[in-house]
Amino acid sequence: MKFLKAMQKFDSSGIRKVFDLASKLKKPINLSIGEPDFNVPAEIKNEVCKAIKNNKNKYTQTAGIPVLREKIALKLKHENKIITHAENVIVTSGTSGALHLLFHVLLNPGDEVIIIDPYFVIYKQVPQLSGAKVKTISSYPDFSLPVLKIEKAITSKTKMVIINSPNNPTGKVYKEEELKNLVDVLKKKDILLISDEIYEKFTYECEHVSPASIYKNTITLNGFSKAYALTGLRVGYAAGPKDIISEMIKLQQYTYVCAPSISQYAALKALKVDTKKLVLEYKKRRDLMYKGLRENFKIEKPEGAFYVFPKVPKGSAENFAKKAIAKNLLIVPGGVFSFKDSHFRISFAAALKDLKQGIKILNEL
Amino acid sequence: MKFLKAMQKFDSSGIRKVFDLASKLKKPINLSIGEPDFNVPAEIKNEVCKAIKNNKNKYTQTAGIPVLREKIALKLKHENKIITHAENVIVTSGTSGALHLLFHVLLNPGDEVIIIDPYFVIYKQVPQLSGAKVKTISSYPDFSLPVLKIEKAITSKTKMVIINSPNNPTGKVYKEEELKNLVDVLKKKDILLISDEIYEKFTYECEHVSPASIYKNTITLNGFSKAYALTGLRVGYAAGPKDIISEMIKLQQYTYVCAPSISQYAALKALKVDTKKLVLEYKKRRDLMYKGLRENFKIEKPEGAFYVFPKVPKGSAENFAKKAIAKNLLIVPGGVFSFKDSHFRISFAAALKDLKQGIKILNEL
Repeated sequence: MKFLKAMQKFDSSGIRKVFDLASKLKKPINLSIGEPDFNVPAEIKNEVCKAIKNNKNKYTQTAGIPVLREKIALKLKHENKIITHAENVIVTSGTSGALHLLFHVLLNPGDEVIIIDPYFVIYKQVPQLSGAKVKTISSYPDFSLPVLKIEKAITSKTKMVIINSPNNPTGKVYKEEELKNLVDVLKKKDILLISDEIYEKFTYECEHVSPASIYKNTITLNGFSKAYALTGLRVGYAAGPKDIISEMIKLQQYTYVCAPSISQYAALKALKVDTKKLVLEYKKRRDLMYKGLRENFKIEKPEGAFYVFPKVPKGSAENFAKKAIAKNLLIVPGGVFSFKDSHFRISFAAALKDLKQGIKILNEL
Repeated sequence: MKFLKAMQKFDSSGIRKVFDLASKLKKPINLSIGEPDFNVPAEIKNEVCKAIKNNKNKYTQTAGIPVLREKIALKLKHENKIITHAENVIVTSGTSGALHLLFHVLLNPGDEVIIIDPYFVIYKQVPQLSGAKVKTISSYPDFSLPVLKIEKAITSKTKMVIINSPNNPTGKVYKEEELKNLVDVLKKKDILLISDEIYEKFTYECEHVSPASIYKNTITLNGFSKAYALTGLRVGYAAGPKDIISEMIKLQQYTYVCAPSISQYAALKALKVDTKKLVLEYKKRRDLMYKGLRENFKIEKPEGAFYVFPKVPKGSAENFAKKAIAKNLLIVPGGVFSFKDSHFRISFAAALKDLKQGIKILNEL
């Protein structure tokens, strides 16, 4: 249509296409969704009610309510060994909201952004809105951090490297050694590191390491969606160098204005909620999934997040996913997250009986 | 700093600067804020609690929950005489969120956008992020719709005209005749009309008219912030041609993901809330303000919204505002909304005693 931009840079995301297919199935076994299946903890529910009843309905400060920024800075200090302060923190409309602001204030046309394949869809799509070029570096077959390949891909135009650990869709958790190697490279070339740590709480084998604890030119992204089941409440944050955060605050003022007020109060409460039991429960599901599939599929044992990313035995993942859907099982073909269409993503953030049923169907395919 | 874009296109907004000044004053009389002073109606508060307790914490469909899109389409049909359907509606993170998506999917570098001076700050700032050129058309001295001047400003590059009625900051409400004249011009030249109707419910002299009822190439923007005191809940919407709305939905998927889930349930309830009594109360305040100031100030009687925009007797509005602040009264200098710095904005969305005190101080200045 004449009013629209000549060329739109992206199509509707593949996950949503599967989601749309799902809406046509009657009671599918849905292992395609990237959000937790547990409910919001009761104390957070109460906090949301209290906030709206106490008239916390007004715009908040653009950067977030001051006490939340302070508590996030303290959390980063104590849990992530990042030396930071409230003024280095912006509260955003979800972590995706933070990414959007970040790309906008940093990327000029022609700038290069390095991401790891498989990738979270937004990393690939949104930088292009600013005219940036996105370079994808393969982490197949074992999904560990491909530091040497990243180093080779860096040019004078490279502005940032984006990593995501624990990783969606592979479940990989980057080790301290790998991160140190990456930081050595980035330090030398003076390149920004964007570290998306939204699955931080979900680690099953080793500790999560925040690269901002060893590299100051890091923007740490995190939020409350995954660990506290607050996906719909749209609240996340970014922490990093003050001048970048300040520009993000300016831009937020003209776009999102502020993260939802009552969601910010929910986040404040969430910082006090212990997620250990929940993570143990997810570990059980991870074990069930891994053991159930490893005989018939080539599969890396997920160390974090709530996904497994097995290889399709033969043919394209898209065809494989279609066959699964024909058997009432929803999974996401790897082509949605990758240049390769050889793997598929299963979320184990689902009920045990659905996971068992899913394993059965997959093994029969 | 080296990582930031070479040139940021905007500075921190003037309103916020006043807001920051406010934070340094002890108990100022604050007539600077663009949000209602009443609380969220009780039935909406209850709905928010119900939503979170009933686990409405998940991502919603990108475009908004289906029943809300349907009810908004029905509202537009019955209250605004706009023939539209659920698929022509996107629910967004506030009305500013809708504007942001809209500019992104429509504006190419070099496109021209026509706005009316005085303007809402976002209209002037955000289109520039897409490389568009913003032309401002003066509506001084009486703030009526300057159709002839708009017609003269149109070039082959003009893509859209943005209007806001009832108007922030002038309080003007555009009449049906004026809108018809504008539509005649835009129809001839095939130009999009963006109609921001966020203050729709606040009219004191005449009916609000929605131009989408007479011109199909209109995007109607509205939200729940002003009429239901839901500013902090971040929920608004856009309605218009399906292909434009579809592109906005695609972009929302990668940025805001969806409007906050529980805010969408609040909005659903808000559509049933009667605002008549509230508007009568605001009319009283408008009358108080207008009568209190008209002797000493040149002032257009506001027909809508909750602002008056008087002329400063002499000197710049910035100096005048500083003098007011020195007397503990917060107002916003017109330069924030305009190329002219000759007027100032007072919000009468404040308690009666503050309005009376504000009038007293202004008359003494």
